[in-house]
Amino acid sequence: MVPKVVFGEGCFDQLTSILSSHKKEKAPFIFLVDDVFEKNTEFLDRINLRFNDKLIFISAEEEPKTSQVDDLVKDIKAEFTYAPSGIIGIGGGTVMDLAKAVSIMLINKGSAADYQGWDLVKQKAVYHVGIPTISGTGAEVSRTTVLTGPVRKLGINSDFTPFDQVILDPDLTIGVPKNQWFYTGMDCFIHCVESLNGTFLNAFSQSYGEKAYDLCLEIFLGDSLSEEESRAKLMMASWHGGMSIAYSQVGVAHAMSYGLGYVLGTKHGVGNCIVFQHLEEFYPKDVALFKKMVEKHNIEIPQGICKNLSREQMETMITVALGMVPLWENALGSNWEAIITPEKLKELYLRM
Amino acid sequence: MVPKVVFGEGCFDQLTSILSSHKKEKAPFIFLVDDVFEKNTEFLDRINLRFNDKLIFISAEEEPKTSQVDDLVKDIKAEFTYAPSGIIGIGGGTVMDLAKAVSIMLINKGSAADYQGWDLVKQKAVYHVGIPTISGTGAEVSRTTVLTGPVRKLGINSDFTPFDQVILDPDLTIGVPKNQWFYTGMDCFIHCVESLNGTFLNAFSQSYGEKAYDLCLEIFLGDSLSEEESRAKLMMASWHGGMSIAYSQVGVAHAMSYGLGYVLGTKHGVGNCIVFQHLEEFYPKDVALFKKMVEKHNIEIPQGICKNLSREQMETMITVALGMVPLWENALGSNWEAIITPEKLKELYLRM
Repeated sequence: MVPKVVFGEGCFDQLTSILSSHKKEKAPFIFLVDDVFEKNTEFLDRINLRFNDKLIFISAEEEPKTSQVDDLVKDIKAEFTYAPSGIIGIGGGTVMDLAKAVSIMLINKGSAADYQGWDLVKQKAVYHVGIPTISGTGAEVSRTTVLTGPVRKLGINSDFTPFDQVILDPDLTIGVPKNQWFYTGMDCFIHCVESLNGTFLNAFSQSYGEKAYDLCLEIFLGDSLSEEESRAKLMMASWHGGMSIAYSQVGVAHAMSYGLGYVLGTKHGVGNCIVFQHLEEFYPKDVALFKKMVEKHNIEIPQGICKNLSREQMETMITVALGMVPLWENALGSNWEAIITPEKLKELYLRM
Repeated sequence: MVPKVVFGEGCFDQLTSILSSHKKEKAPFIFLVDDVFEKNTEFLDRINLRFNDKLIFISAEEEPKTSQVDDLVKDIKAEFTYAPSGIIGIGGGTVMDLAKAVSIMLINKGSAADYQGWDLVKQKAVYHVGIPTISGTGAEVSRTTVLTGPVRKLGINSDFTPFDQVILDPDLTIGVPKNQWFYTGMDCFIHCVESLNGTFLNAFSQSYGEKAYDLCLEIFLGDSLSEEESRAKLMMASWHGGMSIAYSQVGVAHAMSYGLGYVLGTKHGVGNCIVFQHLEEFYPKDVALFKKMVEKHNIEIPQGICKNLSREQMETMITVALGMVPLWENALGSNWEAIITPEKLKELYLRM
């Protein structure tokens, strides 16, 4: 788990003092920052670059890739003689995942792709700090970093993956576009639905998942919260949702969304929404709640994105989705292959 | 926060493998074990003592003291040339707090009393593992260790206090006597009530506190849980309650209970219950719920414990309680001294 966290409106300004005790001589801090902030000079001025510290803007247009991690690591190693004092990720799930992966790969040899899986990382990562600027993915708290590799989309799950420090400042989520806010918030909601309805659930995950789920209902279906309260609560929902997943597993929506992401590059948040709306037979109560939320917030969920797939693309999508064995086992039990056949998946994808 | 945790029925048996990577040559693991297990050979056989590892039984009859910490540290230093590989606390809140304090004081000079307060510890503690065998105190997750010192009862609050590893095995709470189970569970419930009704609350603490509170209602007032589910959920309630307090503050019941503890040696759990039943004017809804729980589980709460106090004892009790300034501020706001006068406290104590 993340050993240190600060929370509160404005707590982002504690960053400089938090970093000061981790500064090593001649070794820079590297800030990976979502390029949505590229023209936000007011915000950038609050990032206190000192000595040889470096800021790198990251596009979150696409899901993070192992090759992107390898390139970042190569560039940092080429520019600096000393391993960085720390990596600071400021952004959404993509930036969180890249910051975690880069901090691991600055120390561990080879390509990030070599470490996709469980507990393959052997050396402690560079000190790394996560500062989410959108809520829902749980990437700020999870022990994985999901990457698209040459062979598969899979996380680097390890004891060295979680951030050493997280800064949760709800004010940083001011200005997130509405669709993005919704899709990413639904990532949390769908995590929880899948975790709470899964066969791998234990009381630890359940308690976190229930809290995140309840917060999502309060935020997306309730009417009593101020915007400030809503931002703070969604940040906590993301946190608890991520904790829940750390000790349980996701399910049908994530398995199918991975397929969309792999073939079409559909981003994780919106991909989950595209899939989830068609999963009544697996999660009837929660798909109904989801549709209410979509309606209440007047959100467009993309439709018909699979209808022009080539046969080969559809086969790849199905293969990727079926490869997520632990997710299917969690969702449907050990007998899942009798329920989810390639034909069944094709039929579901064609509705999307 | 605690960086590593395992959860689940039977996970206690992972202890040996967890410790193995922390073993330093010639340096023992010291197991501090609640003496309630002294004759439980079946349980003791599961603690795998190796090489020069040492098991020390701890009486939880009294609340932990700074002098007790100092004595334990002195004994360990006298017996072993090398600082221990780790301290493993197995027991209730008293043992948790002692294990945390001993691990700090094996490295930091002077007496434990020198470190009562906030962030006075400068050196990283010895590796320490917490294994609760009763649920409710939250001591397994908190960044404090509450100790009675020569001058005051106050925690060693520091970044080095939290356990490096916690093992949450609900099966270890099988066999806890019913009163003890209730008093300690109510420690959690009362934590949450005080935190949720406090002025220091933020969305972080609130989300943890609400979950722990909801779990307590389910456990102590519901009828749907099996004993196994109830044990697992109470262990999680304790965890979330402790997390909530880490970033907020307790209130009236804790301030007054500290007074009882200081003068009469009343243990924390039962002390909170003794106080809480008389706090309708501060927490009306929750005192009513508490009384329902007492009745449902047919629990005796001690009565009349203050009626034979000497004048001096009463004055000390009031002074200790009034000294808990942050607790009163949290409960009643900055104007608390107008509400809680020495006379008011005396009147309340005399009802107990």
